[in-house]
Amino acid sequence: VTPFDDRGLLLGDGLFETILARQGELVLWDAHLTRLQAGCEVLGLPPPDLAEARRACERAIAEAGLAGARAAVRLTLTAGSGGRGLDRPAALAPRLFATAAAAPRAETPARLATAHVRRNPHSPTSRLKSLAYLDNVLARREALAAGADEAVMLNTRGEVASAAAANLFWLMDGRLFTPALDCGVLAGVMRAAVIAAAQARGEAVAEARVGEGELRAADAVFLTSSLIGVRPVNVLDGRPLAASPMAGALARWVADVA
Amino acid sequence: VTPFDDRGLLLGDGLFETILARQGELVLWDAHLTRLQAGCEVLGLPPPDLAEARRACERAIAEAGLAGARAAVRLTLTAGSGGRGLDRPAALAPRLFATAAAAPRAETPARLATAHVRRNPHSPTSRLKSLAYLDNVLARREALAAGADEAVMLNTRGEVASAAAANLFWLMDGRLFTPALDCGVLAGVMRAAVIAAAQARGEAVAEARVGEGELRAADAVFLTSSLIGVRPVNVLDGRPLAASPMAGALARWVADVA
Repeated sequence: VTPFDDRGLLLGDGLFETILARQGELVLWDAHLTRLQAGCEVLGLPPPDLAEARRACERAIAEAGLAGARAAVRLTLTAGSGGRGLDRPAALAPRLFATAAAAPRAETPARLATAHVRRNPHSPTSRLKSLAYLDNVLARREALAAGADEAVMLNTRGEVASAAAANLFWLMDGRLFTPALDCGVLAGVMRAAVIAAAQARGEAVAEARVGEGELRAADAVFLTSSLIGVRPVNVLDGRPLAASPMAGALARWVADVA
Repeated sequence: VTPFDDRGLLLGDGLFETILARQGELVLWDAHLTRLQAGCEVLGLPPPDLAEARRACERAIAEAGLAGARAAVRLTLTAGSGGRGLDRPAALAPRLFATAAAAPRAETPARLATAHVRRNPHSPTSRLKSLAYLDNVLARREALAAGADEAVMLNTRGEVASAAAANLFWLMDGRLFTPALDCGVLAGVMRAAVIAAAQARGEAVAEARVGEGELRAADAVFLTSSLIGVRPVNVLDGRPLAASPMAGALARWVADVA
């Protein structure tokens, strides 16, 4: 439990990671913790102790009885208690905790709907997995209300940015694209793994700054995230999208990396 | 205390109010609760029970030993526990709690510094006192690092929006201005009280959509919030601003209203 004066609870002042665990093994652990440390730097928070973070995750998996299964581990770091209003206390004492649940599987392709809520490229938080994730919650709500599974979020300039809980990739004329981070995009661990896996096979992924027309014109669209890996998209704003053999190829490449 | 699965803690999924209490009297209570209910409507949360909210605030004041003093009461409503990832559970059980502390007084004029973090006019959360307040925390941090007390936040279009924890007003050629809500501005309770108090005296407040050049050209600048009332500004990005008799007048009008 967390006290009522925790800054994560009161203000969204903190960060999290969502990590896939397979039979107790934390997949891409180093990449997750490197991202968490980089986020701490941006927010001005002391980074967590790596050994303590690992123990918290392993304990959460064990307590959830998921040591032999696929688990979604959520590691949360708050700025801790204290301070007055927006201002942090002079001595920060961050709070770290982990929880685990059975990891979801994406059995079907995703149906996407473009949300009205947009991402903010003028805030570093749009590139972080911060505790201030309400815009993502609202974008997902919009998508569900539109009969879809997941949202496409544009940024305030109208550029394609990401899904609510995944990064976006698309294929056009045989080339792979994903939005550039400065579009206000979470620096996804699986996004980086896909880019690295593609490069290792001589396939460049172009980091793009494009409007939604470009996405609509794509030959295929994919989602990536640590929990789902690579998931094909079969509907974008009500329009069917063909399955691409590339989705299967990407998923295999990523399975090799992860 | 709050459990680790609270959506307010994990995702910033919730709202808050900061209410001034004087000798146990909750100032502008109806306006605060009306705003909280309106925010619930936007987020899709069931509104809190008004009597329960009032009791929570009164209990917090009493427990803090502030029944005879000036207290800052924080009323927090989270979306409660449950759901999976971004998705809320089918049956929402919001969590409501209040805390109280001695209310700060603004003894000196404010020094403002313009932050790089900008507000997002394409998200309803920029107009709400939501638990996802990290951008405000970061804007305030920038201001403190620049030797100021409080931030000026522009929106992603470059329009003047608000301070990190207050609304902005300015005076030019004898006319009062404040940014329009659709600039990505919190619908401040004191902002509305100032507009109403000015109107009652035949002074219109123009709701403006202007760039920072307009603010720099102002004859005087003020901050408003429930806790501080009206506070004059004497420095904007290092440039001195003259004190205006209007600040005192506004403060008196607001004291009549509140």
